[in-house]
Amino acid sequence: MIKSYVWKPDKQKRLHDFDPADTGTFKSKHEVQEQIEKLKEELDELQNKLFAQKQYSVLIVFQGMDCSGKDGTIRKVLGVLNPQGFKVVSFKRPTEDEAAHDFLWRTHRETPARGYITAFNRSYYEDVLITRVHGQVDKKEAKRRFASIRHFEELMADHDTVVLKIFLHISKEFQLNKIRQRLDDPAKAWKFDPTDLAEREYWDEYQRAYEDVFEHCSDKQAPWHIVPSDHRWYRDYLVLNIIVEALRKLPLAYPKLTAHSESKVEVEDPVQE
Amino acid sequence: MIKSYVWKPDKQKRLHDFDPADTGTFKSKHEVQEQIEKLKEELDELQNKLFAQKQYSVLIVFQGMDCSGKDGTIRKVLGVLNPQGFKVVSFKRPTEDEAAHDFLWRTHRETPARGYITAFNRSYYEDVLITRVHGQVDKKEAKRRFASIRHFEELMADHDTVVLKIFLHISKEFQLNKIRQRLDDPAKAWKFDPTDLAEREYWDEYQRAYEDVFEHCSDKQAPWHIVPSDHRWYRDYLVLNIIVEALRKLPLAYPKLTAHSESKVEVEDPVQE
Repeated sequence: MIKSYVWKPDKQKRLHDFDPADTGTFKSKHEVQEQIEKLKEELDELQNKLFAQKQYSVLIVFQGMDCSGKDGTIRKVLGVLNPQGFKVVSFKRPTEDEAAHDFLWRTHRETPARGYITAFNRSYYEDVLITRVHGQVDKKEAKRRFASIRHFEELMADHDTVVLKIFLHISKEFQLNKIRQRLDDPAKAWKFDPTDLAEREYWDEYQRAYEDVFEHCSDKQAPWHIVPSDHRWYRDYLVLNIIVEALRKLPLAYPKLTAHSESKVEVEDPVQE
Repeated sequence: MIKSYVWKPDKQKRLHDFDPADTGTFKSKHEVQEQIEKLKEELDELQNKLFAQKQYSVLIVFQGMDCSGKDGTIRKVLGVLNPQGFKVVSFKRPTEDEAAHDFLWRTHRETPARGYITAFNRSYYEDVLITRVHGQVDKKEAKRRFASIRHFEELMADHDTVVLKIFLHISKEFQLNKIRQRLDDPAKAWKFDPTDLAEREYWDEYQRAYEDVFEHCSDKQAPWHIVPSDHRWYRDYLVLNIIVEALRKLPLAYPKLTAHSESKVEVEDPVQE
């Protein structure tokens, strides 16, 4: 099921070939509710093993236009995780110190240790998106950054870190409705940022920049998932599936007592990893 | 002068083709003393400009066998730098948290910001040296790590960070004398570590591992310098020359007042770097 939502480079697909209002073979939230509950239970068990085994780790990268629901997805889908082995890192406008380092510096330091799951709310991909749209990074520089990103994700893979990249795909109309809701609802008004409206003017440029990202940075090892997000229930269901399927593929197992003692000996070794 | 001390891959050179007791065209410390003083003054001026301009940065990587003089070189050659824009980071046996991350994690976070100079006393290269010698990293894994290191150093170059890699090359006899001196001198005895003697047994394996590093990770952009270090005065003189020459090649300049105001405006921009 998930395969059809993976961006495959060189297929000359465009973002508008993916329907943001797609709900697969389902018509309503009720049809997936039971599955969602089962998947959440499975995720809980898988995270337990991941944490106990301390071999693999998971980095989930969330990207999407303003109002695409990054915060909501993280809260609703990942809220089920045990916070002891999980954290969310949000990347806003870089601080002065962050901006004085290479563009991967601030994200690399936040990557998960073995056994842990980390979600990035925005990420190093902003450095080939917002900068690109506003002309601070040209095509040549973007290509170099795409290469740096691929190398970085290879380094993660070499370290047994699974990188899951999720683009929450919404329509322009959906965004407008969300902005209106934010302005009307006192509990959401604080999230309204006037620059969101300014950035909305660059909608098409952002879509092109995202397509360029997907073309250059989606491969079998670390594919980009284009998740239709106009319907929140389907978005949550898909994201949950993506994460659970990735964890299922890992040879996770609770360590045996003997194996545990061995790993303790390894800690004494003067050797990294 | 420095060129002859650069490791050029594919020349099928071995480490023992470099004489650790080499002193170039000089016979004693007195012949270079005056030049050393001039170079130190120039270094001071160059660092001033580097710091004021906040465009370029310098990462100096020191590697060498035990007793090769990494600490001494840093103290004597780099002690002249203004500590406000300079720091030394020593990498010892990884902590548990460091070991739970990829091998570049702990070093990447310590890379210099624009305008700064950082010296690494040992570095990520340990992860293709000690691990290699003791068999925790095989040839295949080492090759992947060499690629990761090259990509990392490319990222540094893209960010205007000059990476200077310096191997302090000593003879096995020199090391033995140093170990003896450490044991005899109360002011140096604290530096003696019994594992140094154990590691000395692996001398040849370390030399091979270093040669492999130089073959795979020395290119025009970030070459390895093989600095003969049996004579400390020549070692210091060469290291000083390597650093000053690298800084001379940069288009360093004090920012003009107008340029300064512009860069202040840039800080306001929502853009990294």
